[in-house]
Amino acid sequence: MPASFLPLLSGFCAFALSLLAGPRTIAYLRRLKLGQQIRDDGPKSHLGKAGTPTMGGILMVVTIVVAVIFFRPLTNSTIMMLFATIGFGLVGFLDDFIKVVARRSLGLRAREKLVGQFGVAILVALYASARVGTDLVVPFLGQAIVLPPLVYIAFTTLVLVGAANAVNITDGVDGLAAGSTAVSAATLGLISFLLGYPDLSLFFGAVAGACLGFTWFNAPPAQVFMGDTGSLALGAALGTGAVLSKTSLILPIVGGLFVIETLSVILQVLYFKLTKGKRLFKMAPLHHHFELLGVPESKIMTRFWLVALVFAVLGLYAIL
Amino acid sequence: MPASFLPLLSGFCAFALSLLAGPRTIAYLRRLKLGQQIRDDGPKSHLGKAGTPTMGGILMVVTIVVAVIFFRPLTNSTIMMLFATIGFGLVGFLDDFIKVVARRSLGLRAREKLVGQFGVAILVALYASARVGTDLVVPFLGQAIVLPPLVYIAFTTLVLVGAANAVNITDGVDGLAAGSTAVSAATLGLISFLLGYPDLSLFFGAVAGACLGFTWFNAPPAQVFMGDTGSLALGAALGTGAVLSKTSLILPIVGGLFVIETLSVILQVLYFKLTKGKRLFKMAPLHHHFELLGVPESKIMTRFWLVALVFAVLGLYAIL
Repeated sequence: MPASFLPLLSGFCAFALSLLAGPRTIAYLRRLKLGQQIRDDGPKSHLGKAGTPTMGGILMVVTIVVAVIFFRPLTNSTIMMLFATIGFGLVGFLDDFIKVVARRSLGLRAREKLVGQFGVAILVALYASARVGTDLVVPFLGQAIVLPPLVYIAFTTLVLVGAANAVNITDGVDGLAAGSTAVSAATLGLISFLLGYPDLSLFFGAVAGACLGFTWFNAPPAQVFMGDTGSLALGAALGTGAVLSKTSLILPIVGGLFVIETLSVILQVLYFKLTKGKRLFKMAPLHHHFELLGVPESKIMTRFWLVALVFAVLGLYAIL
Repeated sequence: MPASFLPLLSGFCAFALSLLAGPRTIAYLRRLKLGQQIRDDGPKSHLGKAGTPTMGGILMVVTIVVAVIFFRPLTNSTIMMLFATIGFGLVGFLDDFIKVVARRSLGLRAREKLVGQFGVAILVALYASARVGTDLVVPFLGQAIVLPPLVYIAFTTLVLVGAANAVNITDGVDGLAAGSTAVSAATLGLISFLLGYPDLSLFFGAVAGACLGFTWFNAPPAQVFMGDTGSLALGAALGTGAVLSKTSLILPIVGGLFVIETLSVILQVLYFKLTKGKRLFKMAPLHHHFELLGVPESKIMTRFWLVALVFAVLGLYAIL
């Protein structure tokens, strides 16, 4: 079997595992009454979602770990990716768990969350600066730039925390974050393979497969949500893989959808402050804006996936 | 720009064109009162779909033609693909048009449809046997077999008519056929590129892009249906591209979803006859079975897309 097929195989393995383990996982989460407390600052139509179990991200993290370990060899890079994925997943898990069990709808305090996220991110950035190098592929130019170590570490830390939170922000419509992450992960898998990182490609394959498997259950109407457990873990996986393949500058292109969703929140807040109370969007992040305009959830999901695909093509072009 | 990027570019072009031309096309079809007459032998919930315009396939055929012609050079193979796509599209168009204008819900008579389809298919088969050769790639074995010319022509004709009708049968849930065809076309595009047919790959890219663009409007709840115009044209495009890249035996693997949908109809009929009146599925094709089981349309669409993706991976494996 050619090496180029391995990422597809690890993806298929993660996908199949998700389908097999999904029903039991969902039933278990439901028994624990781990239903998501729906944010009361979201669209009112989402209040009907109360009771759907959350923390389904556990399923994705486990299937990714199993698929990656099964398709050895584990390299330093894949171990770092496992570390970041599990680390961010754990921060998300604590957050979800506190929300659900302590019924404190907002979960971990912002400071606690950031300490956990920055802690993991800085470790990955330190590792990358020491072992991978501080050079980055420049989009569209076929060149690399070398950053001074401290700048690289600061930038890389922000990339990781930014990626995790961008996926987190995007997770707000059934199927949206899982499917879009699958598209981005598959694209980064292809890019990392083309750039000569078959181990990272294999990891990205597992991430894409796990996301697609999760989408089976998360498609509208969702039977389970990924929670912060899932979205932070997935974002960290995308970010860490990009960092280790020196494509941190390609990542915001491939993940353009996540960037737009994040920008919509930032712009909404800035606009609100500057105009002393006016709103740019009916609601941020952007997917809620369209929901309030009356676009059905399944249509928002599909269209945002298509946007993610366009960014994937643009990202591929950026390295060719 | 590397040649490997051209299929992505033709895909993006077809996608962008569809988004630009979509709203006007849909408004025009609606003005013509070209609403689909919903088959009264389908699920009752579909009666609510009456009034949604059909023949949206015109949009796909036109964007495919424009994108392919724009990204020259036109080879004999791409001209044959255009011929088959337009030919089958025309048969579908006549069928749709008679349904809508003459309000004869079943459209063209079966015999007229088959004459048109077999006519176009035989011409493609004759061309392929004379100019492409009668050898076929054998899945999973990395070998080729050579068929006697008459056997090749008969087989190829059946492949083309079968492919067109398999996509036609699959078209019954919002977003289902367009998205699944996009997956299969993209996969065949990659396969034909790997096997050394960049021109066919470019065509497949345009097909995938046109399908994704159409999905923008066809996602549940659909604003437009593709009609037989679309499904027959798309199926013929997939089939002709496979024939010209000698992958007629890979096609049923890549398009496994379409094969399953078709088999579900055949099995349903056989079972009904053998048991003198019992049903194997609540309704055939298979997607209607799940609808009657209460699975929402958007979930059926997403899951069937995932199945199409699994077959895509299997199809890739078959040529590696």
